[in-house]
Amino acid sequence: MVALKFTLPWILLLSIFSYTNSTTTTKSIHHFPTQTLSSKSHSLKEQSIQYKTKYFTQTLDHFNFNPQSYQTFQQRYLINDENWGGADTAAPIFVYTGNEGDIEWFAQNTGFFFENAPHFKALLVFIEHRFYGESIPFGGKGVAYKNSSTLGYLSSTQALADYATLIIDLKKNLSAESSPVIVGGGSYGGMLAAWFRLKYPHVAAGAIASSSPILGLEGIASPYSFNNIITNDFKAESENCYRVIKSSWNEIDRVAKKPSGIEKLRRSFKICDGDIDANAIKIWLETAFVYTAMTDYPTPSNFLNPMPAYPVKQMCKAIDDQNDMFAGLYGAASVYYNYSGTAKCFDIVDDSDPHGMDEWQWQACTEMILPTSGNKNDSIFPASKYRYEDRVEACEYIYGVKPRPHWTTTHYGGENIERVLKRFGSNIIFFNGLRDPWSGGGVLKSLSKTLVAIVAPRGAHHVDLRFSTKEDPEWLQKVRKREIQIITNWLKQYYKDWSIPSL
Amino acid sequence: MVALKFTLPWILLLSIFSYTNSTTTTKSIHHFPTQTLSSKSHSLKEQSIQYKTKYFTQTLDHFNFNPQSYQTFQQRYLINDENWGGADTAAPIFVYTGNEGDIEWFAQNTGFFFENAPHFKALLVFIEHRFYGESIPFGGKGVAYKNSSTLGYLSSTQALADYATLIIDLKKNLSAESSPVIVGGGSYGGMLAAWFRLKYPHVAAGAIASSSPILGLEGIASPYSFNNIITNDFKAESENCYRVIKSSWNEIDRVAKKPSGIEKLRRSFKICDGDIDANAIKIWLETAFVYTAMTDYPTPSNFLNPMPAYPVKQMCKAIDDQNDMFAGLYGAASVYYNYSGTAKCFDIVDDSDPHGMDEWQWQACTEMILPTSGNKNDSIFPASKYRYEDRVEACEYIYGVKPRPHWTTTHYGGENIERVLKRFGSNIIFFNGLRDPWSGGGVLKSLSKTLVAIVAPRGAHHVDLRFSTKEDPEWLQKVRKREIQIITNWLKQYYKDWSIPSL
Repeated sequence: MVALKFTLPWILLLSIFSYTNSTTTTKSIHHFPTQTLSSKSHSLKEQSIQYKTKYFTQTLDHFNFNPQSYQTFQQRYLINDENWGGADTAAPIFVYTGNEGDIEWFAQNTGFFFENAPHFKALLVFIEHRFYGESIPFGGKGVAYKNSSTLGYLSSTQALADYATLIIDLKKNLSAESSPVIVGGGSYGGMLAAWFRLKYPHVAAGAIASSSPILGLEGIASPYSFNNIITNDFKAESENCYRVIKSSWNEIDRVAKKPSGIEKLRRSFKICDGDIDANAIKIWLETAFVYTAMTDYPTPSNFLNPMPAYPVKQMCKAIDDQNDMFAGLYGAASVYYNYSGTAKCFDIVDDSDPHGMDEWQWQACTEMILPTSGNKNDSIFPASKYRYEDRVEACEYIYGVKPRPHWTTTHYGGENIERVLKRFGSNIIFFNGLRDPWSGGGVLKSLSKTLVAIVAPRGAHHVDLRFSTKEDPEWLQKVRKREIQIITNWLKQYYKDWSIPSL
Repeated sequence: MVALKFTLPWILLLSIFSYTNSTTTTKSIHHFPTQTLSSKSHSLKEQSIQYKTKYFTQTLDHFNFNPQSYQTFQQRYLINDENWGGADTAAPIFVYTGNEGDIEWFAQNTGFFFENAPHFKALLVFIEHRFYGESIPFGGKGVAYKNSSTLGYLSSTQALADYATLIIDLKKNLSAESSPVIVGGGSYGGMLAAWFRLKYPHVAAGAIASSSPILGLEGIASPYSFNNIITNDFKAESENCYRVIKSSWNEIDRVAKKPSGIEKLRRSFKICDGDIDANAIKIWLETAFVYTAMTDYPTPSNFLNPMPAYPVKQMCKAIDDQNDMFAGLYGAASVYYNYSGTAKCFDIVDDSDPHGMDEWQWQACTEMILPTSGNKNDSIFPASKYRYEDRVEACEYIYGVKPRPHWTTTHYGGENIERVLKRFGSNIIFFNGLRDPWSGGGVLKSLSKTLVAIVAPRGAHHVDLRFSTKEDPEWLQKVRKREIQIITNWLKQYYKDWSIPSL
């Protein structure tokens, strides 16, 4: 019922957006980590899943050997062995390569692993990403998050090395050296899963990389594809809906400039008391449209907010049913922010984050340069040119760091991927749903017989990894069946190559 | 005529050996970086090769983002474009992945690249490894080599990231983004080449990994294989030769304990004036046997020292021709230390290093744990059990660092390589000569159709990469022809995959 993590890339994106479009630049920089959630009333409807919580003493810096590098921290991981076939039969181990948040949240949101563990007799392991949740170096967030001297150790390469180190140690402790490891994840976690199989084939026999925009990095992807896809999602539901949203940005600005204009907007959108401006309202609306496009799932869901099935359609219905623009927009925003109906007013400048994802913006300021803020003239959002320099300026202001925009593609590749990986590597599933704006940076064509792209035209952000429901459409059932079949084949091949009797 | 670098792993090995066997432990620890060369009269007979020297502004730390990581240093590289077909035809680029020493020395010793550049119309690039030669961070050796705070940035993973960064930038500057890159190297440079293709397939289309003991790491290889192979090399020439050398160690100890025994030994081996002991003499002899086994080339050579063809045979001849043990050993040592005949006496405690390889011992104390000091009962050297703890103790004494013995295999793999890479990766040549003691850690069986092992039973340490001579035996000519054929196939495939008209 719940989805994997996807929020923070967008949070950054929002922030950059607000930064580039705002007339009150300094203020919006201060709001860089803005997460414009509505009422606090919604809570995660957790699946009843079981796991044990464990901790691993992890090396701070795998790649250098100075005294600081030898420091350690406690890395949290969750483990579920209730279905595991055990080391004796080399039963498989499914490892979730944690992304930017609390690992318990990801575990609660990875139904695919839990539902298929009995079939595969799989051990489930969810490893928390360093600097998130409880896996904080330097004794805690107070020091770890303080400045770039300590935050510097938050990087994807260190995270992958953490996973390799932990998995090898865990397998040894379980005497399960022969057990195949399948890694998986969604969004940034999917990027990590794909990269892990590519960089650590001796640790992972295969990877499920769901909605992982590994081709969405600076220098490879179009910075316009993200908002193009959102635009098309809404346009496909209703041309009127698209036009209303597109014309709303100027209309909000126009009204805001009038005497008592802000108060009119506050009433129209039922915004709580407090200091607001047109920019904050626009970001609040944009957030709703973007998140809803990403999570345009075919069944009711509850990731950050409770949502109906096909929420983009519901938003457009709200807009199309109203003659008044603001009334329509209010209805659309309510689909995202108040589907449960419990919010009395919207606190649009609340930037609290219940999932411990604060530090994504550090990653987005260093190596995870995923340009998404470009808007062509026909975008549903105001036209804006993507400017890398804006991110540089913001990151220097906040952290005093310069991004390394080319490092990520230097290290992981991406350019000409279809040529590079045509005869290199194996056993990765790249899932993408085409309604997901991140799919613009996804691998949409199979690269070889064993580097397989699965594309769901009506799918949203890592819908495949969500818990199944009785209402799942046939195409989604088929996607999951195909993934299970591919994993089955990987395991068969593995047992054959390792001369282990198949389970 | 000259060979690639191989010395320093052995230098460490020697040191460890001396450390474990010495009764004067502290003293031998001080001699950890011993390189027991003889007279200074030998000089490198350099090939007349052409190259331009250039410098690249390199990032100190690719994997972290703290302020220190953003420091830069000037990385030296050499470039030869006299045969290059140019960017327009996407002519290939051959990159030597520099190992632990001065890059000019490697360039002078990589005949294979220079001799085949015209045929492939290849651009040649030799990149110096960080912390060696002129590529010293922190403004120079004074600071860089001072202690583990600065030496900490000397690691193989940083070196590979350096190469990726430099190559991508160079190709961009040459507008040669479409040119295929083939990396190559010998010994540690060969390990780097193989790992580079595995970790950066988007940068290198193939790798020639010559005599690269990637399976010689702690936890994978037998620590006895190294000396087993040396033992067999000498035994195969003459059973008497083996027996004389094997019994000499006790005999040296016995004589040394007698009154004036040391002076008798000094006279027997023509050792220069200065403080010596039995241990120093034994290390001096061992060095000769080990280096000679490694460089048991079929033609006269000049790597560290001038040597005749088949020097192991010559050593054994010197021993077999004498009835007196010490006279025989002196003759054998002279094959290695004084083939040119210019040395009047041997300075056996001179540990100067003309090739800038000092810092290998840092690498051998952190991640490059290549256990080689084990000797079985029938070893040509005194029997000794390999003890990892000895290295730990020595490294803590010298640098105050603990090795990370499992890190290298965690990061690069190695265990079960035939299973792991059966269906992963492509385009690596693993060359090994079986007379080379390092071949015990080499990939001796092809892993797949494109991960090819070439094994030369009579070959020594990266003999394939040496300049050819008219006297080269047929097997060696065949090895090089096969390597050229394989590289040709890689390039053909590349041009086909990239839809570039073949050259």
